[in-house]
Amino acid sequence: MKLYKKRDFPVGEIRRFLEPGPVVLVSSAWKGERNIMTMGWHMVMEFSPSLVGCLISSGNYSYELISRSKECVINIPTVDLAVKVVGIGNCSGAEVDKFKKFKLTAIRADKVKAPLIAECYANLECRLVDGRLREKYNFFIFEVVKAHAPATPKYPKTIHYRGDGMFMVAGRALNLRSKFKPEML
Amino acid sequence: MKLYKKRDFPVGEIRRFLEPGPVVLVSSAWKGERNIMTMGWHMVMEFSPSLVGCLISSGNYSYELISRSKECVINIPTVDLAVKVVGIGNCSGAEVDKFKKFKLTAIRADKVKAPLIAECYANLECRLVDGRLREKYNFFIFEVVKAHAPATPKYPKTIHYRGDGMFMVAGRALNLRSKFKPEML
Repeated sequence: MKLYKKRDFPVGEIRRFLEPGPVVLVSSAWKGERNIMTMGWHMVMEFSPSLVGCLISSGNYSYELISRSKECVINIPTVDLAVKVVGIGNCSGAEVDKFKKFKLTAIRADKVKAPLIAECYANLECRLVDGRLREKYNFFIFEVVKAHAPATPKYPKTIHYRGDGMFMVAGRALNLRSKFKPEML
Repeated sequence: MKLYKKRDFPVGEIRRFLEPGPVVLVSSAWKGERNIMTMGWHMVMEFSPSLVGCLISSGNYSYELISRSKECVINIPTVDLAVKVVGIGNCSGAEVDKFKKFKLTAIRADKVKAPLIAECYANLECRLVDGRLREKYNFFIFEVVKAHAPATPKYPKTIHYRGDGMFMVAGRALNLRSKFKPEML
C-alpha cells in the first residue's frame, strides 16, 4: 500500500481536511494498549488555537483510552482504505489489535503518545483541551498540536459517510476564489 | 430557479445531509429582522434527539438573532447556489436583507419563526438546546425539530468548503453496505 511522503503542516490550516467532513480514523494509546476507531462526527471549531470537536461514544473501547491519556491522533483516510475503514468500525479494540488485523503501520507521533497511521493521507496529533461536555454528549474538544500531510495531492479523495452503508467520495474542485471579498478568504 | 418538492424527513436521519460536511445556509429571525449566514463548521452529535453542533461567530449579525430567538433553520444548498453562498458570506445582514439581495424565497417554517430558504435542497428547523459553550467557543447545540427534504435526488450535489476560495463538490456514491455488520448500519 502506498505511503504518502509527508511534511509538517500548519495546524491553523487543517480545515482543508476536516471541514469537508470526511470519515476519519482516530488512533489512541494508554498504558500499552492501542486502538483505532472510525469516526464520522467531528468539526473544526477554531483556527488558532486549532480546535476540533469530536463525538466519541462511550461504548467505544477508544473512549477510555482517550479519556485517560487525554490525547489522540485524527488520521484522514482516502478511498483506497474504505473497506478497512468499515472493517475497523465493525470490531472492537477490546478484542483485537486493529493495527495488526488491518495491516496498518503505527508510527511514533511527535507530541502525543498515540501512534500515527502511516497509510492515511494526513495525521493530526491532538490533545484534549475541554472535556466538560464529555459526560453529557460524549463530546471532546481537542487542540491539534502537530499536523502531517503530503504536498500532493493537495485535495485527497476522502470518503464521507451518509449512513446505510453509503459513502460519498470527494468530487471535483470548484474554484470560486474570484467571488470572495479578499478579507473573507 | 428550481424549487424542490419536499416531504417531511425523519429528524433522526439527517446525518445523510450533514455528516458529509456541506457548507450550509443558516436562516434566522428576531423581532422583524431576518438574516442568512453561510456556515461551514457544524457536526451531527446525536440521532435521537437529533442534535447538531454549530459554530456561529459572535462577529456575525446572525449571532444576535439566533442567541435571542434560540432558533434557526439550517438550509442545505447545492452546487447551483454556490455563487450565492459565497455572496451571502461576503456581506452583513446588518446592512442588507439577504433574501432580497440574493433573490431567495423565505417560506414559513412549521415549528420555528426563522424562515426556510425554498431554493435549498433540505431545510432543518432547529431549536437551541445547549448554549453553555456559546460564550467561550461560539458553539451552539441545536435540536432539529422538523426536517424537509425531497425524495429525489437522494444524494444532492452539496458543496464543501476547503478554504482559500476552493470548494469540493460531492462526488460519486460508494456502496459498502455488504461490508458492514448489520448492527453497525
